[in-house]
Amino acid sequence: MELLRLDELSHGLANLSMFPCFDVAHYVVSIMALREQPGALEVSRVSPLACWFSSMLFCFGGAVLSGIMLAEPPVAPLSNSTNILLASLTWYLVFYCPMDLVYCCAAMLPLRLLLSGMKEVTRTWKVLGGVAQAHGKYKDSLLVMVANGWAKGAGGGLLRNFEQLVRGVWKPETNELLKMSYPTKVTLMGAVLFALQHTHYLPLKKRHLMLIYTVFTVVNKSRMMLTGSTSSPFAAIESAVYKTLFAGHAPYRALPSDGNKACVDNGTTSTKEFSKNGEAGSPDGAQGRPPKEEAEPGETDTASCKKND
Amino acid sequence: MELLRLDELSHGLANLSMFPCFDVAHYVVSIMALREQPGALEVSRVSPLACWFSSMLFCFGGAVLSGIMLAEPPVAPLSNSTNILLASLTWYLVFYCPMDLVYCCAAMLPLRLLLSGMKEVTRTWKVLGGVAQAHGKYKDSLLVMVANGWAKGAGGGLLRNFEQLVRGVWKPETNELLKMSYPTKVTLMGAVLFALQHTHYLPLKKRHLMLIYTVFTVVNKSRMMLTGSTSSPFAAIESAVYKTLFAGHAPYRALPSDGNKACVDNGTTSTKEFSKNGEAGSPDGAQGRPPKEEAEPGETDTASCKKND
Amino acid sequence: MELLRLDELSHGLANLSMFPCFDVAHYVVSIMALREQPGALEVSRVSPLACWFSSMLFCFGGAVLSGIMLAEPPVAPLSNSTNILLASLTWYLVFYCPMDLVYCCAAMLPLRLLLSGMKEVTRTWKVLGGVAQAHGKYKDSLLVMVANGWAKGAGGGLLRNFEQLVRGVWKPETNELLKMSYPTKVTLMGAVLFALQHTHYLPLKKRHLMLIYTVFTVVNKSRMMLTGSTSSPFAAIESAVYKTLFAGHAPYRALPSDGNKACVDNGTTSTKEFSKNGEAGSPDGAQGRPPKEEAEPGETDTASCKKND
Repeated sequence: MELLRLDELSHGLANLSMFPCFDVAHYVVSIMALREQPGALEVSRVSPLACWFSSMLFCFGGAVLSGIMLAEPPVAPLSNSTNILLASLTWYLVFYCPMDLVYCCAAMLPLRLLLSGMKEVTRTWKVLGGVAQAHGKYKDSLLVMVANGWAKGAGGGLLRNFEQLVRGVWKPETNELLKMSYPTKVTLMGAVLFALQHTHYLPLKKRHLMLIYTVFTVVNKSRMMLTGSTSSPFAAIESAVYKTLFAGHAPYRALPSDGNKACVDNGTTSTKEFSKNGEAGSPDGAQGRPPKEEAEPGETDTASCKKND
Repeated sequence: MELLRLDELSHGLANLSMFPCFDVAHYVVSIMALREQPGALEVSRVSPLACWFSSMLFCFGGAVLSGIMLAEPPVAPLSNSTNILLASLTWYLVFYCPMDLVYCCAAMLPLRLLLSGMKEVTRTWKVLGGVAQAHGKYKDSLLVMVANGWAKGAGGGLLRNFEQLVRGVWKPETNELLKMSYPTKVTLMGAVLFALQHTHYLPLKKRHLMLIYTVFTVVNKSRMMLTGSTSSPFAAIESAVYKTLFAGHAPYRALPSDGNKACVDNGTTSTKEFSKNGEAGSPDGAQGRPPKEEAEPGETDTASCKKND
Repeated sequence: MELLRLDELSHGLANLSMFPCFDVAHYVVSIMALREQPGALEVSRVSPLACWFSSMLFCFGGAVLSGIMLAEPPVAPLSNSTNILLASLTWYLVFYCPMDLVYCCAAMLPLRLLLSGMKEVTRTWKVLGGVAQAHGKYKDSLLVMVANGWAKGAGGGLLRNFEQLVRGVWKPETNELLKMSYPTKVTLMGAVLFALQHTHYLPLKKRHLMLIYTVFTVVNKSRMMLTGSTSSPFAAIESAVYKTLFAGHAPYRALPSDGNKACVDNGTTSTKEFSKNGEAGSPDGAQGRPPKEEAEPGETDTASCKKND
């Protein structure tokens, strides 16, 4: 009986239309996230056009990135007049509403929770759409399906550096590949699952996977908002994978230059302290790698670069 | 009689060929503008290839940007060998002519005025071409027509950050969306008008609109060059629109951090003085917005961020 | 007899398959070059995904750039699963092999020499492929063929700024157009030769040109690796061309501002010392150009900007 109910629920979800309520929720939450970026309010007062353009990138970034990747017109979202009008109206109300009514109401926790949950539902649709679109062009390529599903669902985040450039902000030291945020991670996971399902490697019906994935993302998002926690549900798995495959996720400490010997004399070596905050080292620091030692997590001093004889 | 003459004139303008004289004028003026950029002469001595590439972006940036937007090959301008040869010859003469003859002659006011006027005429053709091209792909989408017309006519300016990157210059704090120059504004206006005319919202014949728009741009450009003025003819309209819709274009001043309270505790807030020069604030400044107050032009002190109970 | 042998050799070369050995050699050498970039090892420990993405850009950058230029999907390399798997395996072994075996073995001079030679052979194939692909789209355009051949063969280098951005590094002051490295130069030369041959301007059979070009690149690369020299074989030709056409490749020195007079009062001029290291000057330095003087190599003082009456 329970399973029948879930099956009906999955049917209902699969037939749900994102337009207009879920789409509007996605616009509201995205544009509020933009507004809370440092400097975004100033940009809205200095140049409404730049602010509008940024907002459209937040709302439709996935479609733009997917278009770039598949050589389809990145302006295609602009041709969908109804959605653009809705998004522009949302942008105007969030940034310029008299007495700031819309932002303050939407920012109240109950309503924000509801809107964020609805936005998570649209994520499922986007990833699914991206995977199907890629399957149409590259029938057998799992990687392209994952890439396009990921782009469609998390394009706004992946394009973050360039969206910031529109607002006059440039932060090259970080991006979503170097330091992946939770939404981008969960979208990548969804893209992999939906691609595996689409190519029948994952023996699940599509609507069942949609239901499972949507419930997972909505529940996690709500939990994180209610508890104020930023701990990712993937932390344990990531840690295990890193330790097994990638010699641990520990910070890697450089050594004084006399201790650094590359295993042959053909790499440029210099020392640079590598901070623990997930940012890449400066452009002029490189590490020598001793031939017979793995980098061990936590090991920092000269030992890790001594050549073992 | 007057109207008949104007109609004939509009016919003549509509049938005028841009090649070769008007195109060459556009190349000369564009490349002279590049040469007057800080650092461009050094680049011409260090790397003629980078200088040539920049010049081609100045000359054909509109076609490149339009190609990127509509998923057509951005290298298409390179296939038009005659135009590329003319542009390259112009580049060579402007930068490397013995005794700098070409630059100094073209920079004399009477000749520069004539060439700039002819360049303004090519602007009409580019915007029109962009609007028509977009109409061919997206029949009903006004926004795509405006975007493509704008890109075709002002692509060089819109791509400015990346053209500067070719020359080793990187100025992320400003771009044409944040601080629109006069050519970009007038091109946007033209794109809107031609798109409205193309979709029959504007009850004007195409050649009449071409004549009106061309006369407007040529006359304004000449006036600005002769008077040395930089005041835009749109200043009054912009100011009115801003005050009505976007709560004024006044500088927005940040407050000491203890005065900054967002209306809910979920935005990052810090203080940063926001300068009046139209540049976006630094990446780490954000403003709290009190729930019941509009940002009033000129109001700077703590009052604007007090929470009203 | 000698000629017959060479002809047979050229036949053999033309029918040689790059997959899998030559392709793998290209991946190994490319990813080792990435690893030797400052900061790359840290990125590999912080974010294997960013490291993998960078490696794919090093390996397939040419196909990506060519796709962007010709409006074909830049993700197309991802659809070639076998090559992506090989490249990913190479990436994993070069960065994460226990005891760093793979990197240290491949870095030993004899093996590195062999792998680099094999990579040079793949260069010929890429340039040729790029020229043929462009010829398919733009039958008569020599420039597009050169551009696409160049992009396919040297795309990794041309995209260097953006590959660095993936790793959190941003160096706008230099790029391959401003300061071309040897691989990029030799690829450009190859693209020009193959384009001329393809359009029958160069009276050589394709397989003969392939043989000549491949032998040239392999021999030069080996010479440079064995002698440790960085002197380009093109230095003399470049110097002659510069002196003839581009008023010399000498450093260009700015002057004190009172000495700087543009030949008309319409350029912004300021002074900035332009260093000799081939980098473009800072954004706020421009040079006045006296109307009757060429910039002479070595001439630095006020004389070069005096207005001659």
